[in-house]
Amino acid sequence: MRDRGQLVDVAMARTKPDMVIRNVRLVNVLSREIHCADILIAGQRIAAVLPANEGGEGYRTTIDGTEKFAAPGLIDPHVHIESSMISVREYARMVIPRGTTMVAADPHEIGNVLGIPGMRVLLDEAAQSPLRVKFRVPGRIPAMPEWLETSNGSVSVQETRELFDWPEAVCLAGDINPSLVLEKDAEQFDKFDQAEQLGRLISGQSPGLRGRALAAFLAAGPEDSHVARSVDEIIENTRLGMASVLALRPGRVLDASHLEELAQICKSRNIDTRQFQLCTDDIHAHDLMHEGHLDHRLRAAIEAGFDAVEAYQFATINVAHGLRIAHDYGSIAPGRVADILLLSNLQSVSVETTIIGGEIVCASDEYFGPTERVSYPDWAKSTIKYKRPLKADDFHVKPKNNNKIAQVLVISNSKGKGKVTRQEELPVQDGVVQPDSGRDINVMAMVERHGKNGDIGLGFSDAAGLKYGALACSVNHDAHNIAIFGANHDDMATAANRILEIGGGFVLVRDGKIVAELALPIAGLMSDDKAEVVAEAMQDVRTAFREQLGGNPDDKALIYMNFLALPNIPAFGFTDKGLIASDKMQPIETVIG
Amino acid sequence: MRDRGQLVDVAMARTKPDMVIRNVRLVNVLSREIHCADILIAGQRIAAVLPANEGGEGYRTTIDGTEKFAAPGLIDPHVHIESSMISVREYARMVIPRGTTMVAADPHEIGNVLGIPGMRVLLDEAAQSPLRVKFRVPGRIPAMPEWLETSNGSVSVQETRELFDWPEAVCLAGDINPSLVLEKDAEQFDKFDQAEQLGRLISGQSPGLRGRALAAFLAAGPEDSHVARSVDEIIENTRLGMASVLALRPGRVLDASHLEELAQICKSRNIDTRQFQLCTDDIHAHDLMHEGHLDHRLRAAIEAGFDAVEAYQFATINVAHGLRIAHDYGSIAPGRVADILLLSNLQSVSVETTIIGGEIVCASDEYFGPTERVSYPDWAKSTIKYKRPLKADDFHVKPKNNNKIAQVLVISNSKGKGKVTRQEELPVQDGVVQPDSGRDINVMAMVERHGKNGDIGLGFSDAAGLKYGALACSVNHDAHNIAIFGANHDDMATAANRILEIGGGFVLVRDGKIVAELALPIAGLMSDDKAEVVAEAMQDVRTAFREQLGGNPDDKALIYMNFLALPNIPAFGFTDKGLIASDKMQPIETVIG
Repeated sequence: MRDRGQLVDVAMARTKPDMVIRNVRLVNVLSREIHCADILIAGQRIAAVLPANEGGEGYRTTIDGTEKFAAPGLIDPHVHIESSMISVREYARMVIPRGTTMVAADPHEIGNVLGIPGMRVLLDEAAQSPLRVKFRVPGRIPAMPEWLETSNGSVSVQETRELFDWPEAVCLAGDINPSLVLEKDAEQFDKFDQAEQLGRLISGQSPGLRGRALAAFLAAGPEDSHVARSVDEIIENTRLGMASVLALRPGRVLDASHLEELAQICKSRNIDTRQFQLCTDDIHAHDLMHEGHLDHRLRAAIEAGFDAVEAYQFATINVAHGLRIAHDYGSIAPGRVADILLLSNLQSVSVETTIIGGEIVCASDEYFGPTERVSYPDWAKSTIKYKRPLKADDFHVKPKNNNKIAQVLVISNSKGKGKVTRQEELPVQDGVVQPDSGRDINVMAMVERHGKNGDIGLGFSDAAGLKYGALACSVNHDAHNIAIFGANHDDMATAANRILEIGGGFVLVRDGKIVAELALPIAGLMSDDKAEVVAEAMQDVRTAFREQLGGNPDDKALIYMNFLALPNIPAFGFTDKGLIASDKMQPIETVIG
Repeated sequence: MRDRGQLVDVAMARTKPDMVIRNVRLVNVLSREIHCADILIAGQRIAAVLPANEGGEGYRTTIDGTEKFAAPGLIDPHVHIESSMISVREYARMVIPRGTTMVAADPHEIGNVLGIPGMRVLLDEAAQSPLRVKFRVPGRIPAMPEWLETSNGSVSVQETRELFDWPEAVCLAGDINPSLVLEKDAEQFDKFDQAEQLGRLISGQSPGLRGRALAAFLAAGPEDSHVARSVDEIIENTRLGMASVLALRPGRVLDASHLEELAQICKSRNIDTRQFQLCTDDIHAHDLMHEGHLDHRLRAAIEAGFDAVEAYQFATINVAHGLRIAHDYGSIAPGRVADILLLSNLQSVSVETTIIGGEIVCASDEYFGPTERVSYPDWAKSTIKYKRPLKADDFHVKPKNNNKIAQVLVISNSKGKGKVTRQEELPVQDGVVQPDSGRDINVMAMVERHGKNGDIGLGFSDAAGLKYGALACSVNHDAHNIAIFGANHDDMATAANRILEIGGGFVLVRDGKIVAELALPIAGLMSDDKAEVVAEAMQDVRTAFREQLGGNPDDKALIYMNFLALPNIPAFGFTDKGLIASDKMQPIETVIG
């Protein structure tokens, strides 16, 4: 609760502010203007915004804003910090200099691995950094019923209600299978009721839903989606009152060319953009360092042709409205929390200074938050549990008949369509279906790793496109079992067993030798090392993936492989139970007939 | 709570909707477009919005929307129903055919007279009509400390907290003296804390506040104001994050010419108008019938040059956002409550059919809500209590010296400036300062009428401008004591005593005879009669006021006289303690020296 008296006294010039930003070009996301102003800060909040040079002088901290822009701190409404593979502390150190002052995080990755204690330990770590980390209460843990996927963590309806009482809680997260909504899942509807009773946003995701299905999804309660795949879909969402959280996925389902088309349509038809928001969703440390964070999405929106101040609205006030926190965050105005960026250039989002809660937390690339190595408890760092060591024949796909050729379904990542399958013929030797490096078709396995049943889902994929060796990885949304892609069965076993030794991460093997690896000991998802170290190791993994294993040359291939598992969103998933049809929520036979 | 399953089933065409509006031009306040659509309604809510003619056929109620517009029901964010002088039932019957489907009402008029039971009885009456009446929890009852004004009702901080639990409660109302905020009134700040803890809007009013004072007001918590007096003030409010609730007061502080200027500035600078809302605040039954309700304000906004759909946003989605109910109200979209207007003309706001909660409540001017005479309990209808009958010399202003000429302050309504005072000389006869009809200067009295102390505030005013006789009235914001304006003392006593006999209302007297009257027996504020009867009686009062008493020819003079009392907003008020300076919250001597 704000100190109303202090703010009034400072605004009325009865007492002095703690900080004044003088004569700055204010990026006013409320009126959608840029105008010169003095900003007076008292404690954590803004006490007054006055005409330039009317704020008085002689205060403890005076910042000369001449020639600079002041914008509200950027707010990311939809992230999964675990996907960065770095600790929250390191994530904060990466994003704050780029202008992100708040993220709304759904920690359902660590939640699926470690349950509620896992989410709590991550948020406790977050509390030690200056980044504001709001808690998107996970919509569904585990994501799938146990007969479709083995997970570890679980959160009941009653526990979900209790999670809303956590001080960081901001909304009900919506990264769930839309068919749960369309099929009127009682548990999901109970959670919607909870959120509604508490006056919280019900977040959703409606990938590709249109017409009646989209209406049904919205009518049930969810209010936003971050997985639109086309401009048409975004326009339909906007008309139907679904906030479009634009998660740019470069080269994938929504990219810069879509944004350009969207900007043009909005301009020519004068479409109201107040429901547009920007988000990063899942972003690797390496991409975060090289592309940027929300600043990258914001630059893209400006480059796409949106008016600059309007684009800043997408990353500030519109997000705050969506999260129902606009009375506190998302704009520079009296009474609002003093989360403020000073920029040298608006279009390029060139952040010079980041102020959070009235404190300078980063200036001229010097970061004042904690930088020492993070410490997680041991129970959060020993999470890979196999029933027994893995052997080459654990990865043998055996057809039921004696044919020399097997008809199989190959799961693949399509740039335009997401996850697809296609039918292929593969040779059978000694009763085992063989991969075919010539056509990039690898054996794909998903090994249960929570120590529960040791199940192994088997099939084929060309997503990794390995010519040689094998790749194992412990990041596989949302259950985070161990995915292994292999051009041969022996290297698959080696890679899988090495994952156990390093506590999770990425392991690349060729001819029985480890050629690159990245350890992610925190829940098998995150490193406790420096972001730079993780990014460099990830770069080594990417390079080895392409150069030594002959893997998919697409720069983002390794990221999208992490989502091949996910049975939540169309059209397919791949779990420790094998290939899953997302819409029907049923397993599919990999070997046909 | 919505029936999510039912809505999903209807949207998915698994079960039939209760109503379909086919092939209508949808006024989409979400995307700010007009597009053709079918609207499917299930129970109280919208199940789907589909492309035109895709909604299917053969349902219980099918409305052909061809050539018609469908707009969300209009929402008035700031009204005082008592000011209409008709019951809520009659108010509903007047406003629903004009397209208003919800009002957020602050019943602090009846609250000042009858306390919490008075507000409850009014809301209970409201519940019997199809109009949605949300409850703005009054910010301050009584408005003034007892040494500045005698009121009857009172609501403590603790009781205010309990009022938020009423099912109709929507926000903390803000019709309070802004100096309470600027002077850090502890009780007011406690109420702000309550509203903030509950996630409710803190409404405010900041008439004429600019610069540091405006910043201080906003920093303390209030988020909107309905009393801006100039376009400059509206722009400053917008920049600082204060929602502008535009209460057009024709011919007064904000009128059509201001709206035109505002529309032009917003267009030329591309200013974001999402914070703009329209309201009616206080409106007499007579004006309601002849000018209209929110439809009148909406027409004015369109005529002023705002884009039509944008103007509809001011009366629908923007209001719903302000009141934090946009997930349920203010747009036509799946899941939202089915409060829908069918219009033959968008610009003229020509409403043909009003649907509230999926039910047709008015069609082709036929109103289906309750129309029988309303019944209020006796305790709500015997509220005028004098200590004793009034006599002519109760209204004698006696100077302290023996001069033949008295210097007095005359309180007046200025079209541009609100309430002002000026100094005048008046003759003294037999120790009594005499009114001067030649200069329109009447004796003004405010008689305490709650049976508490019988105090009488005395002074002079030219607001009524009576040439003859006297006018007495029981509607005087916010304490609703009895105001009497007189060209002579005898007629003042006659008028005042007649008010007691009829239980409150308006009484006009000339030469000892009653020439017109309107009884308002419910709390001395509202009639229990038909709106048409009240409007006609009010018309008679207005005519007699001008023609028989020679009163102020301004059509709205009688309305603005009701606010002459109000010490809440600048610069003056007139209570049973006499003339009050609003900013200093102190009485002022009427006779100088």
